[in-house]
Amino acid sequence: MARTDELCRRTATEAVALLRAGKVSPLELVEAAAARIEACDGAVNALPIRFLDAAREEARRFPAGRDARADRPGWLAGLPIAVKDYNDVRGQLTTYGSPIFARNVAQEDDVTVATMRANGAIPIAKSNVPEFAGANTFNPVWGATRNPWDLRMSAGGSSGGAAAALAAGLVWLANGSCLGGSLRIPASFCGIVGLRPSPGVVPRGAGLPPFDTLWVEGPMGRTVADVALLLDAQAAESPRDPLSRPAPAVSFTAALGKRRPPRRVGFSADLGLSRVDPEVAAICRAGAARFAAMGAAVEEAAPDFAGAIETFQTQRAILFAALRGALLERERARIAPDIVWNIEKGLRLTAEEVVRAERARAALYHRVAAFFGTHDLLACPTVAVPPFPVEQPYPTEIGGVRLATYIDWMFLTFVVTLTGCPAISVPCGTTRAGLPVGLQLVGRPHGDAELLGMAQLLEEAIGLAGQVPREPAATAAPRG
Amino acid sequence: MARTDELCRRTATEAVALLRAGKVSPLELVEAAAARIEACDGAVNALPIRFLDAAREEARRFPAGRDARADRPGWLAGLPIAVKDYNDVRGQLTTYGSPIFARNVAQEDDVTVATMRANGAIPIAKSNVPEFAGANTFNPVWGATRNPWDLRMSAGGSSGGAAAALAAGLVWLANGSCLGGSLRIPASFCGIVGLRPSPGVVPRGAGLPPFDTLWVEGPMGRTVADVALLLDAQAAESPRDPLSRPAPAVSFTAALGKRRPPRRVGFSADLGLSRVDPEVAAICRAGAARFAAMGAAVEEAAPDFAGAIETFQTQRAILFAALRGALLERERARIAPDIVWNIEKGLRLTAEEVVRAERARAALYHRVAAFFGTHDLLACPTVAVPPFPVEQPYPTEIGGVRLATYIDWMFLTFVVTLTGCPAISVPCGTTRAGLPVGLQLVGRPHGDAELLGMAQLLEEAIGLAGQVPREPAATAAPRG
Repeated sequence: MARTDELCRRTATEAVALLRAGKVSPLELVEAAAARIEACDGAVNALPIRFLDAAREEARRFPAGRDARADRPGWLAGLPIAVKDYNDVRGQLTTYGSPIFARNVAQEDDVTVATMRANGAIPIAKSNVPEFAGANTFNPVWGATRNPWDLRMSAGGSSGGAAAALAAGLVWLANGSCLGGSLRIPASFCGIVGLRPSPGVVPRGAGLPPFDTLWVEGPMGRTVADVALLLDAQAAESPRDPLSRPAPAVSFTAALGKRRPPRRVGFSADLGLSRVDPEVAAICRAGAARFAAMGAAVEEAAPDFAGAIETFQTQRAILFAALRGALLERERARIAPDIVWNIEKGLRLTAEEVVRAERARAALYHRVAAFFGTHDLLACPTVAVPPFPVEQPYPTEIGGVRLATYIDWMFLTFVVTLTGCPAISVPCGTTRAGLPVGLQLVGRPHGDAELLGMAQLLEEAIGLAGQVPREPAATAAPRG
Repeated sequence: MARTDELCRRTATEAVALLRAGKVSPLELVEAAAARIEACDGAVNALPIRFLDAAREEARRFPAGRDARADRPGWLAGLPIAVKDYNDVRGQLTTYGSPIFARNVAQEDDVTVATMRANGAIPIAKSNVPEFAGANTFNPVWGATRNPWDLRMSAGGSSGGAAAALAAGLVWLANGSCLGGSLRIPASFCGIVGLRPSPGVVPRGAGLPPFDTLWVEGPMGRTVADVALLLDAQAAESPRDPLSRPAPAVSFTAALGKRRPPRRVGFSADLGLSRVDPEVAAICRAGAARFAAMGAAVEEAAPDFAGAIETFQTQRAILFAALRGALLERERARIAPDIVWNIEKGLRLTAEEVVRAERARAALYHRVAAFFGTHDLLACPTVAVPPFPVEQPYPTEIGGVRLATYIDWMFLTFVVTLTGCPAISVPCGTTRAGLPVGLQLVGRPHGDAELLGMAQLLEEAIGLAGQVPREPAATAAPRG
């Protein structure tokens, strides 16, 4: 068990190095993950769908030595991973957390999973999600996922099971996906790293409208290097995704070796939009200030995001209606009321509202592109609140002020989604109550590799990444 | 004058080779184009906005010898080009063919033009367009562009000035852009080659909604090799376009050296959708059959395009409204009634119609992707009719049957637009009346380079590409 726990605490980068060196086998890692899941996931409920025997079989058959060179296919060299339950793994359940799909078995890997598998990943479990979408991970099929740093608290969402599995040391890497913040919010709440890549970097499955540019697939890990590694294993052009693009000529992992600090950083606690918890704002401001010690000018500055909250809500509603409108016609009674409301909101819009949102998104993009003409990085909190009690569907107040809508606390991530810019959440500090707080770093258009390098510099300066609790905690303990 | 005309008849590939070898200077090519424009464009009216003195100045300053290696920036080595009047060239008019913009001078090159200029292009004129959009090139600012093969006939559109300029030998290369067929339709009518690349291959200017995936920029030329050359000069990732992607690792020009014939070709005269002129259908069927001599299985087959006409019309109307809705509010009286109708159609849609179109586009994409699992190429006529009299705003009948709407004759290109697949029009034959007919070849998703290779094989088999009439003709003369 000591060996098991020691293996589980390794970063993905270290685990892959052990695999390549022949010092550990894929099967040993599957067994280590299985033991850790057995020991810890009862309390966390991050990985409710497990297929460990299938993973053992795949690990036994995994071709030894095929991944000797890191620049060839086989980035993960037989590393076990968790797959989000919005993605398809052949022969396993895909439930979306919905009773309608509680017995839905996928026939094939979707393109995101197939790409990771082709690059040496061994899926061992599906990670829990909110029903269809959301930023707190609970659903009527599998129940709630709890935050490993404080089991009373939410792990965030929608990639909440993925983030909690990483924080609890159940797996080394996990994929996620993001519409309004679903890679960044759970990363912030669970003290791990989550990257929303630029559209097209990671190919997307057939369940999504192929020409949508809001929803992206992406990597999650306990360190920036691990996130870069998984992104290398995810990036590919595919005929299944018309907007996908070839993996970059220089890998994301290799690009970290040429990382550079930013010269000019804009920080804003609230992007000029809405309320942010004062403790969260202070932690993030101090985090962004770390770039100054690297020679950067750090100033209070951000592009003008005025109107972006309404723009995102309109575009999200349209996407919801496109994704789930047909299901609503057939299965209204078995869909959560919040989701029904969202789909119907989409279907009630006028084309004039749709067009106004498209124009507003265009104008925002050009303001943001101009900002990156003078700045290398935009920094702000990832989430406007610290982790909240898991039983609350969503936070009802910020700093003592009641919230008007159920997504008011997510605006810092979803307005960034609109820009198409890559964005990452990096562990930045802990609240007085011992809960993780993430700093969101937004990079220039197409600047995924550059952003990862800056994020890694910050990660090293702050020194909180890569931690795994001895065991998931019933109450939070101060870290770092 | 003989030397001038001889230079103008060269392909772009030949002209660039002469430039690289120092056998001709950029200035000599500007002068050759100027002489040919002077001699021929009075009848054609392809290039109504000319800035020859500025081009001469730029040609004089063009750095000699900077483009010694074809795989470096500088693909065009100082070659004069025509720029479509929907694009911005710094210091020159951008009118969109609209009286509202008749005196609109662009402050900067847009990203499409800047990329071509960075790759050695010297813009010498703006090519004529329909007012804002359309497939017959006439407008109240500059009048109509005429078909160089028969001056009574339309050159097609919207890149009609570009296609006519190429056919008449006024320039060696011209850029175009496409929503519903604006690179392919004028190529077909003028007997030249026009490629609609995959979205993201060519970066797009700030006038377009940055996340739209219907409108693309692309290359036009007299041969497939010339089109590949211009595409190499156009392809770039840019922070001004969030969906743009890096130029490919192997250039489009180099990829032609590894071209392969298709193994299995699906041909359909009408894509199962609507009426096609019988003579056009017969010419194109015979053209597609040429692949059989290269060892391909050529069969009557196509993906199911049912519903695609309505889907495109909905998405086009939304894009129109996003592009020009604000202008309509200010300038209704100075906008052509057809355009007003289109914008208003967009603004009158319900979100339910928008969502239905998005879902239908997704389903079509998956059917087309499946087709390319078993076929390498889809072939069909580019346009359902041969070139029609330029005074007619649009054709009113096909094969003696009256058309219901003014876009019924364009369906073969615009339904392909929806798929995101690359598509090219290659000269395929001439009607009994001596008018050019193009064959549309559609490639698999992301298969731009592969498609160019197959198109070049067909071009060689048919042998009609690269022709320039001695002078623009008052009546058509049989070719080939």
